[in-house]
Amino acid sequence: MAQKIISRHENIYCPFLAQVLYDFTAEPGNNELSVREGETVTITNQSIGGGWVEAQNSRGEVGLVPEDYIEVSYIVTRFPFLTGSVSLLQATNGNDPWSAWNADPSGGSTNNWASNPEGTQTGKSAPDPWAPVSHGHPQAYQGPGAEDDEWDDEWDDMKSTGGYAESEAGESGALQRGGSHATSMKISLNKFPGFSKSGPELYLLCKQLVKGKDRLPIYVGEVGPVWSYPETQLDCVVADPKKGSKMYGLKSYIEYQVTPSTTNRPVNHRYKHFDWLYERLLEKFGSAIPIPSLPDKQVTGRFEEEFIKMRMERLQGWMTRMCRHPVVSSSEVFQLFVTYKDEKDWKMGKRKAEKDETVGVMIFSTMEPEAPDLDLIEVEQKCEHFSRFTKSMDDGVKEILTVGHEHWKRCTGPLPKEYQRIGKAFQNLSSVFTSSGYQGESTLTDAMTAAGKTYEEIAQLVAEQPKKDLHHLMETNNEYKGLLGCFPDTIGVHKAAIDKVKEGDKLVAASKITQQDKVTMAKRASTMSYALQAEMNHFHSNRIYDYNRVMQLYLEEQVKFYETIAAKLRQAHSQFTTM
Amino acid sequence: MAQKIISRHENIYCPFLAQVLYDFTAEPGNNELSVREGETVTITNQSIGGGWVEAQNSRGEVGLVPEDYIEVSYIVTRFPFLTGSVSLLQATNGNDPWSAWNADPSGGSTNNWASNPEGTQTGKSAPDPWAPVSHGHPQAYQGPGAEDDEWDDEWDDMKSTGGYAESEAGESGALQRGGSHATSMKISLNKFPGFSKSGPELYLLCKQLVKGKDRLPIYVGEVGPVWSYPETQLDCVVADPKKGSKMYGLKSYIEYQVTPSTTNRPVNHRYKHFDWLYERLLEKFGSAIPIPSLPDKQVTGRFEEEFIKMRMERLQGWMTRMCRHPVVSSSEVFQLFVTYKDEKDWKMGKRKAEKDETVGVMIFSTMEPEAPDLDLIEVEQKCEHFSRFTKSMDDGVKEILTVGHEHWKRCTGPLPKEYQRIGKAFQNLSSVFTSSGYQGESTLTDAMTAAGKTYEEIAQLVAEQPKKDLHHLMETNNEYKGLLGCFPDTIGVHKAAIDKVKEGDKLVAASKITQQDKVTMAKRASTMSYALQAEMNHFHSNRIYDYNRVMQLYLEEQVKFYETIAAKLRQAHSQFTTM
Repeated sequence: MAQKIISRHENIYCPFLAQVLYDFTAEPGNNELSVREGETVTITNQSIGGGWVEAQNSRGEVGLVPEDYIEVSYIVTRFPFLTGSVSLLQATNGNDPWSAWNADPSGGSTNNWASNPEGTQTGKSAPDPWAPVSHGHPQAYQGPGAEDDEWDDEWDDMKSTGGYAESEAGESGALQRGGSHATSMKISLNKFPGFSKSGPELYLLCKQLVKGKDRLPIYVGEVGPVWSYPETQLDCVVADPKKGSKMYGLKSYIEYQVTPSTTNRPVNHRYKHFDWLYERLLEKFGSAIPIPSLPDKQVTGRFEEEFIKMRMERLQGWMTRMCRHPVVSSSEVFQLFVTYKDEKDWKMGKRKAEKDETVGVMIFSTMEPEAPDLDLIEVEQKCEHFSRFTKSMDDGVKEILTVGHEHWKRCTGPLPKEYQRIGKAFQNLSSVFTSSGYQGESTLTDAMTAAGKTYEEIAQLVAEQPKKDLHHLMETNNEYKGLLGCFPDTIGVHKAAIDKVKEGDKLVAASKITQQDKVTMAKRASTMSYALQAEMNHFHSNRIYDYNRVMQLYLEEQVKFYETIAAKLRQAHSQFTTM
Repeated sequence: MAQKIISRHENIYCPFLAQVLYDFTAEPGNNELSVREGETVTITNQSIGGGWVEAQNSRGEVGLVPEDYIEVSYIVTRFPFLTGSVSLLQATNGNDPWSAWNADPSGGSTNNWASNPEGTQTGKSAPDPWAPVSHGHPQAYQGPGAEDDEWDDEWDDMKSTGGYAESEAGESGALQRGGSHATSMKISLNKFPGFSKSGPELYLLCKQLVKGKDRLPIYVGEVGPVWSYPETQLDCVVADPKKGSKMYGLKSYIEYQVTPSTTNRPVNHRYKHFDWLYERLLEKFGSAIPIPSLPDKQVTGRFEEEFIKMRMERLQGWMTRMCRHPVVSSSEVFQLFVTYKDEKDWKMGKRKAEKDETVGVMIFSTMEPEAPDLDLIEVEQKCEHFSRFTKSMDDGVKEILTVGHEHWKRCTGPLPKEYQRIGKAFQNLSSVFTSSGYQGESTLTDAMTAAGKTYEEIAQLVAEQPKKDLHHLMETNNEYKGLLGCFPDTIGVHKAAIDKVKEGDKLVAASKITQQDKVTMAKRASTMSYALQAEMNHFHSNRIYDYNRVMQLYLEEQVKFYETIAAKLRQAHSQFTTM
């Protein structure tokens, strides 16, 4: 079993030639393919998951091979012009993912995942959930050791699910995004985040589109193109975290109860299951829909109550956002996650989801806009507009996070200390006064002591207030920061498609594609644009809802805060005698 | 005239032998005494003022001599045991004026005028009237150059009051506390602050006490010994500061209008006149009554409106405190200051005041407690109690000043900046939202912009608030800090007297005093104790009034502040739509 616990990567959805690096002997009945070192195979499906790829040997035999055992050679058979796509990948996945549209170097914005300037700030001992952390790309390689997280490693399910050992191994392999592959895995294209979602040619030029039940219609509503929304919105409650342990207590984990509003029947999921779902959604929808990453795994104090509460709150936030998305929430994989009936159902659903081929840019092949085709200029303008908007909003959100973070530190640090010192100073002077021996000053000293205590209470209120209001403002903005961080990739796919369509005449002239291919590409770019517009409209509608709600909450709590202080001070004031 | 512009110092009220340093020729009709270098004279009155002392030569002739022209030789004729008093002076005027009773070195308190630890903090550019400054002893030598203050130097009255040149010279000389004497003046005893008020023997053993109109009765009221309070309390308004100039505009000054409630007739005074009054009061009452020093002369921006307002406010505070004191306010010199009829009246009154001999410890000779004598143990206990209390209160007041100063800085510096940044961040995000092109989000963006502006308004409120509340709290505590800074000297006089009485038997045994002298000393120490108790009771009563008032004011303004913010936020909140 151990040899199957290997890394899995972003998937590349076109057939590659690959060199076999090491001998591999297939286990009978496992759909595996035996290969020998030095042999050349064609990768027929890289989106198998669990560290496996589907390969075809020179004899035409097809089967699964561990992806660590092969090295892709980049020679593409179907679309010769794809060899030129490396520069495209670099352009859209370079240092500044926003730079494709926004060339202003003085913008003052931090780019999303390159160099990570926020990371230069060091963490404080006080728990500040928004202390700048390395907020990497959702798909970014989390570095060796990430899989050492005891919650998620391959061991901690072994004992209870021994009967499903093979599947579990696949599952846990799917969650490993570091470790062994860092040395043995040679598919270096995977180092370019977002690669899986670029290469839009796969969709732009593919021969047949998906029809039937997977069809995703796009309507034109009042605000423009919109997804098809269900009549009742799915909702999920993530609750009741329970600590479990494995390996005679050596390994432990937290299991959350997820209850969807449709069935009202709870299912249990560990963080690693959420992560599996995230991987599937990213793979399937990431080219068209920004899939925000899960809350960070790497947090200290993992069994402390506060941490569990915080992670649950963020998992809830993530689930709510997924539920709210009509395309995501109605997908088979998401429905599986929230409504699986039993262990067998879950395992089978997982297998199926991992084999889904309508992933990456191919998701666009399921989309059917009920509207006339857009010309390329309009497509490009829309794309540029969205890019600018999401970039600006990213800046705005980060500004709020920075300011809020500063404010959080002040409200929980120096400010309450100062109020406490004021309170102490009043009380100290009051007790000096009490020692005067002068008659009849107890009214003054009692009142001064009370005033001092009031300021100590205010100190407490000040220190606790951020949890009541700033917390939500920060959480919402943090969520949007994550969401906005996905847009450069999503928009990059569109930008790449637009560039490819622009090359149409040249490609026809060079006989690399036919005139019909060119027309098809333009039509499909229009479909992609409708998808982007539908997604942006979905984003805007959610954004308006979320910010309206969080601003109201923030101001409401702020009003209460200041009113409470005023009332306390009024009470303190009343204890002094009016002379 | 120029030779008469010489320095004047704290006065020493017992006859000294002095060496004449330089020839001096008397001007006829000026009560002056001609002396020659090397001659020995007896100082018969050092409290003449204006840089003059009264001396008697070996031929028995008495007259005024410039004090810079003589050097005191410390050989005392009348009380041989006073030669031992240097150690006494050192004991009560050493590095820590509080240490006489409070030997705890870990008390954490800063001593009053030694080493001045507060002075290590550097001033900020923002005007903070309580920024720790060198808060010296009220009588402390202000250093060479202090008299360069253009308001107060000897020149700026010359033109307008040419007819009173001689007197003016005396007046301005009286205000010089630096300059020439620093080199020529050799009465080094003056380097011990409070010297003038120690040497209580002068009173304890003097032959005849003052009777008649200057009598200061001490009654025993409900709270213990009390001064005799007038039926209606004198009040003074310091107002209407006017800038005047002299020397064709080269010199300028500010004149304040002082209107006493008794006559309701305004008189004009410059700062130097207040300073003259302060010197007189200190000289006359300082041994029994703490006379707080005037607001600092050395302030920057002297002609700026704010500075003038601040100085006037503090002069008003000082005058109010003096008016409230029954002994001070009813004194001839104070009445002169507030009710002089014309220039001539003022000049004559000044002359008379400067010649007053009932000064220093001799003020106790005017006091008549209407109560049985106290025994020494009780006297000592009272004195120790007051010393401890004033020391503790000094610590408490300084704590409030320190904390308040910190709070002032925060409220006018980082805090409003942070609220401003929050406000800007909301507004920036709102304008990003406006650029979305999405329909119907103006309600949100308008509300967010309004919320942002509200936080900018809050920033303004926060920055301006200290002037409305903390200012008064700081001013009152600052005033008390000054007042409490006078207590070590005042209490030192009592402590010295107690020590002297304790030596009674020894002195009798050594035939230095008679048995009757010893009895007289004990009785007079009791009188001193009554005076101290009356003064402490006066202090307590004022303290209770002042702190009750200022705490109420502070809390009242704080309530208004928080309520205003709450109301503004409530208004901002109401602009969001409830969904």
